[in-house]
Amino acid sequence: MILDCDPGHDDAIALLLAWGNPSIELLGVTTVAGNQTLEKVTANALALARIGNIAGVPFAKGADRPLVGPQLIPDEIHGDSGLDGPRLPAPGAELDRRHAVELIAELVRTHPAGSVTLVPTGTLTNIALFARTHPELVERVAGVTLMGGGHHTGNMTPAAEFNILGDPEAAQIVFTAAWDVAMVGLDVTHKVLATPERMAQLNRVGTDVARFIAELVEFFGASYMRERRYPGPPMHDPLAVAAVADPRVLRTVVAPVTVETKGEHTRGMTVVDLRRTWDPDHRDDPSALGVADDYEFTAGDSKIEGVHRVGVDVDADLFWQLLIDALTRIGNTAFANQSKGLHHDQ
Amino acid sequence: MILDCDPGHDDAIALLLAWGNPSIELLGVTTVAGNQTLEKVTANALALARIGNIAGVPFAKGADRPLVGPQLIPDEIHGDSGLDGPRLPAPGAELDRRHAVELIAELVRTHPAGSVTLVPTGTLTNIALFARTHPELVERVAGVTLMGGGHHTGNMTPAAEFNILGDPEAAQIVFTAAWDVAMVGLDVTHKVLATPERMAQLNRVGTDVARFIAELVEFFGASYMRERRYPGPPMHDPLAVAAVADPRVLRTVVAPVTVETKGEHTRGMTVVDLRRTWDPDHRDDPSALGVADDYEFTAGDSKIEGVHRVGVDVDADLFWQLLIDALTRIGNTAFANQSKGLHHDQ
Amino acid sequence: MILDCDPGHDDAIALLLAWGNPSIELLGVTTVAGNQTLEKVTANALALARIGNIAGVPFAKGADRPLVGPQLIPDEIHGDSGLDGPRLPAPGAELDRRHAVELIAELVRTHPAGSVTLVPTGTLTNIALFARTHPELVERVAGVTLMGGGHHTGNMTPAAEFNILGDPEAAQIVFTAAWDVAMVGLDVTHKVLATPERMAQLNRVGTDVARFIAELVEFFGASYMRERRYPGPPMHDPLAVAAVADPRVLRTVVAPVTVETKGEHTRGMTVVDLRRTWDPDHRDDPSALGVADDYEFTAGDSKIEGVHRVGVDVDADLFWQLLIDALTRIGNTAFANQSKGLHHDQ
Amino acid sequence: MILDCDPGHDDAIALLLAWGNPSIELLGVTTVAGNQTLEKVTANALALARIGNIAGVPFAKGADRPLVGPQLIPDEIHGDSGLDGPRLPAPGAELDRRHAVELIAELVRTHPAGSVTLVPTGTLTNIALFARTHPELVERVAGVTLMGGGHHTGNMTPAAEFNILGDPEAAQIVFTAAWDVAMVGLDVTHKVLATPERMAQLNRVGTDVARFIAELVEFFGASYMRERRYPGPPMHDPLAVAAVADPRVLRTVVAPVTVETKGEHTRGMTVVDLRRTWDPDHRDDPSALGVADDYEFTAGDSKIEGVHRVGVDVDADLFWQLLIDALTRIGNTAFANQSKGLHHDQ
Repeated sequence: MILDCDPGHDDAIALLLAWGNPSIELLGVTTVAGNQTLEKVTANALALARIGNIAGVPFAKGADRPLVGPQLIPDEIHGDSGLDGPRLPAPGAELDRRHAVELIAELVRTHPAGSVTLVPTGTLTNIALFARTHPELVERVAGVTLMGGGHHTGNMTPAAEFNILGDPEAAQIVFTAAWDVAMVGLDVTHKVLATPERMAQLNRVGTDVARFIAELVEFFGASYMRERRYPGPPMHDPLAVAAVADPRVLRTVVAPVTVETKGEHTRGMTVVDLRRTWDPDHRDDPSALGVADDYEFTAGDSKIEGVHRVGVDVDADLFWQLLIDALTRIGNTAFANQSKGLHHDQ
Repeated sequence: MILDCDPGHDDAIALLLAWGNPSIELLGVTTVAGNQTLEKVTANALALARIGNIAGVPFAKGADRPLVGPQLIPDEIHGDSGLDGPRLPAPGAELDRRHAVELIAELVRTHPAGSVTLVPTGTLTNIALFARTHPELVERVAGVTLMGGGHHTGNMTPAAEFNILGDPEAAQIVFTAAWDVAMVGLDVTHKVLATPERMAQLNRVGTDVARFIAELVEFFGASYMRERRYPGPPMHDPLAVAAVADPRVLRTVVAPVTVETKGEHTRGMTVVDLRRTWDPDHRDDPSALGVADDYEFTAGDSKIEGVHRVGVDVDADLFWQLLIDALTRIGNTAFANQSKGLHHDQ
Repeated sequence: MILDCDPGHDDAIALLLAWGNPSIELLGVTTVAGNQTLEKVTANALALARIGNIAGVPFAKGADRPLVGPQLIPDEIHGDSGLDGPRLPAPGAELDRRHAVELIAELVRTHPAGSVTLVPTGTLTNIALFARTHPELVERVAGVTLMGGGHHTGNMTPAAEFNILGDPEAAQIVFTAAWDVAMVGLDVTHKVLATPERMAQLNRVGTDVARFIAELVEFFGASYMRERRYPGPPMHDPLAVAAVADPRVLRTVVAPVTVETKGEHTRGMTVVDLRRTWDPDHRDDPSALGVADDYEFTAGDSKIEGVHRVGVDVDADLFWQLLIDALTRIGNTAFANQSKGLHHDQ
Repeated sequence: MILDCDPGHDDAIALLLAWGNPSIELLGVTTVAGNQTLEKVTANALALARIGNIAGVPFAKGADRPLVGPQLIPDEIHGDSGLDGPRLPAPGAELDRRHAVELIAELVRTHPAGSVTLVPTGTLTNIALFARTHPELVERVAGVTLMGGGHHTGNMTPAAEFNILGDPEAAQIVFTAAWDVAMVGLDVTHKVLATPERMAQLNRVGTDVARFIAELVEFFGASYMRERRYPGPPMHDPLAVAAVADPRVLRTVVAPVTVETKGEHTRGMTVVDLRRTWDPDHRDDPSALGVADDYEFTAGDSKIEGVHRVGVDVDADLFWQLLIDALTRIGNTAFANQSKGLHHDQ
């Protein structure tokens, strides 16, 4: 698995989950501008290497802006550093010299066909550039499991989610390339909330890394709980990693997905075609999302360019179990002392 | 109530419901191109006057095409006549000389302010032209209860419903004018399906009009049941009339609604902003539609131009009761014999 | 001729030209929001009735906003009153009770088919509403000679002219209705500049009305001369009237025209298809506009919805002669004293 | 100079001009899908290496499709091979293993900063991918002189030229990157027509390569002369090369340019802001293009993202002289015999 991210509070948790989960081999970490500028999210990723004691994994820097559209930086969610809240330690890894796109290409080329899954948890600029500059490698990719989009709701606008709105043209490239995409959108990430009960579970792990995550969640959760009255912040990005770690985490339907790049009110929306969904057990509510495992669609749907798996339900208990297991496995990494040391120096 | 319609199978039922319901005073019926050409839907409306024995209500012809965009005629749903299935009798009313927009204006002007509700069940061209040519009358209208749009799903495209897609610019005018709109969209009309059980109830009324409606539903339902595996066709248009007849039929949330007129994949979509919806009883599923009766939104939402009531749930039993009551009240109108007579003549 | 205007400095001159020209019968004057709010431009039109001693012509108020899009008010060109510069007298006519659209409809209906030309010099909202609410009268109209658009250049944006950008959807309706349109756009209005030499000619008329126009031009011209380094302001609106008064004023080519309503940078642009233009006398410059009087286009041009006459050259001397003749014919109207009187009262 | 092309008849001439001109050092040739599929245009480029006896120059294959939008293949202009007309010889060079984007990056990195000019004569996909995957090299590029766009006219649509319409998103990237762009659009290429007189001049060179070009022009010119009544086909792509070879060939104005990616009728249009253009010698025609060498624009023009040089006039005599000199310098390359040999084999 290659994690393409823009840490970002939930990206940070996603990275630690990917590193601590035993069924995932983390081949590389690439960064993309998103939750903050490329420089900041890359610095954050390198700090996370120390926090998680991540070794033997190349970290490479990617796109510093979207393909075509304007850049969005959501200071109000992730703060000035992109990872506000806990104090960060010094970098725990050196930056690879290669561009993220080059690193992805080399990892895909040098591993067996069908063995590498791309997991983007930020805007899709790097993945789109990879698909367009290395079209011959697209078929070697096992699949793309991305955090982004949503059918029922957006967050940045009524219809669009942040990662897709951040680079809708890149998203459209990813959804039309010849690989399988599993979309982990707001429909499912809003079902995995870090409520106080879940945080209490997490705290019982008792390590410095678990405490670090708790601090992240506290900062990240505040705006969700205050402005949107959520009982806790959604675990957007870690859910995509968990869906790769254990397929039982995510229930999906197969449906045509396309990205609106041109609308006045809908730019960045993932348009999922669920018109032919039907389920005998939910006859009273045909508009419900995700009721049909045997979803069928007719070839030749005009304007529909790609058919993919769309997440519609989650096993939240399993998700939290995977995260707790990963943190337990990572254990104490003693980064906290270093962090305090840095604090004294400043 | 003024019914602005394009019969159309479900428009026909809507008209009969409006005529037969005792709490509705039907002031006028206007037609608009939509389910078929203006000539055909107007002829259908006049035939329905005979079927329902509708008297003392002016029928006026309105817009023959959308304001700006191209015209859609869904032959495959409503057939060549717009009301295929049962044989239609001769016209039962004379066409008013006034244009639909003029008739609406005069009815609104001559009735007390706040007493006239507009119920469009077709494209919104007439209503938009009324709002733009008679801006001084907009505030006299009690409200607009329209069948159209949808949050969860579209029907003509993955994101757009037929009545809105048929004239998105008109819809945008209606949703931004200074009146209250109640949107009866696919989210709720898909919950009122004419299943065999419901049809059996209807048939027990035992009149020629009830039999006529059963034939309409049979024709109209076939494509829904075959292509989309619905257990019966949705009662789109009558639901809007029922929501006016008895407010308990429809549960709504208050939310900003805007119409996408420009998207490549989303033109004609009603963009409902449900991001701040939350409900303590459904904490595990914040993405569910319609859970918050105390929905709040912040002023200054960019790009959001109108705040309206959006239907999110229905009392289907009450709906069917209202329809059966209306048909019972209409009774036998002896049109069937006339219809047969016509049949022999041809 | 019916003048549909939003005075507006050059609208004011257009109105006086229409009134003073002997070959034009001015049947009505209608107003539309544009250069200023509807209230202000209507008040300006009524003041112009006194200035020009215009009698026996109904003045009616029309649309107070565009059909669908947002309203533009260019304070920086026409000032706070819409007619800043000279002091205006009291109204010289009473406002007709009818809406502009009703007045236009009645004038077209009661005059012989093919005898009434519409001359809109503002946004096209009224004309579009007329076409959509009275489709049966469209063919009775002799033609629409409008000031708006441009092929080479815009003014409000690089690609769009103010009258079209003010209501692109209305413009698209006008360009697709079944009547002949002559487009008097920036390509030709920028060739009729009120240079000091022209103004000297005008001043030689010596009447109070001519002096009034000189003051208008002085105010209106300042921004053109300062910001765009023009030697004088363009006579946009009067040129449309002059083109009706004497067809020799305007040279046109026949070409497909459509209006862009959706572009990010091109909304409100009149897209003129001149690709097949060619002229043996200008072989060295096939991209020049207006070289082919025998312009031909192939049926079936995709996306091209209307074929119209597009102004490409003007006889500026003839234009000024027409204006001077009209002013001479109007003579002194003694409004100046009244204006001064008003001045003392305030 | 690096030539990025999609031969294509005029691309072929552009390549031979670049090779034969003594002031141009041709560092590399890259291909992009456009006038035909990537495979075909790449084969054509390699055949041209033999025709021109081009040696020591790497040829690399680039993007096989546009970034985001649909692919356009104009069979009707360039024929099934992309270079229909004369028979082509066997490849005269081996294809470089690197992707076009990699080759461009390496050439820019290994040559002095400010010494390499990119000359794209096809869609801008490769150049855009280079800018986005190697942002640190953008400032090392001396400039981009591209054939594409147009202010007065389009060719594929009324408003859009083929190379820009072929990938408008890529064009927008190129026009917003931090380098200087000189736009050689239809406004100027339509002034360099291969009339019979010009072809007679060319034929006097008397070599097999000159004869080859004459055959190309004959095929390529037919549709222009038949459908558009041009006296000869425009020399689109070679003009961009000539503008690099000798700056006196092209007169430019400095103006903001942006690319419309979203319009319904204007997608792919290069929107050039010429509103503040003015020239004392052309006071009677402020709408003329290119009259102001001292063109000024105000910072903060909304929606204007890049300011570039836009070609407005050409020295056609100088262009033809450069082409004839280049062909003379190339001389006879004896490819014709080989070509005939191939012919017998088939």
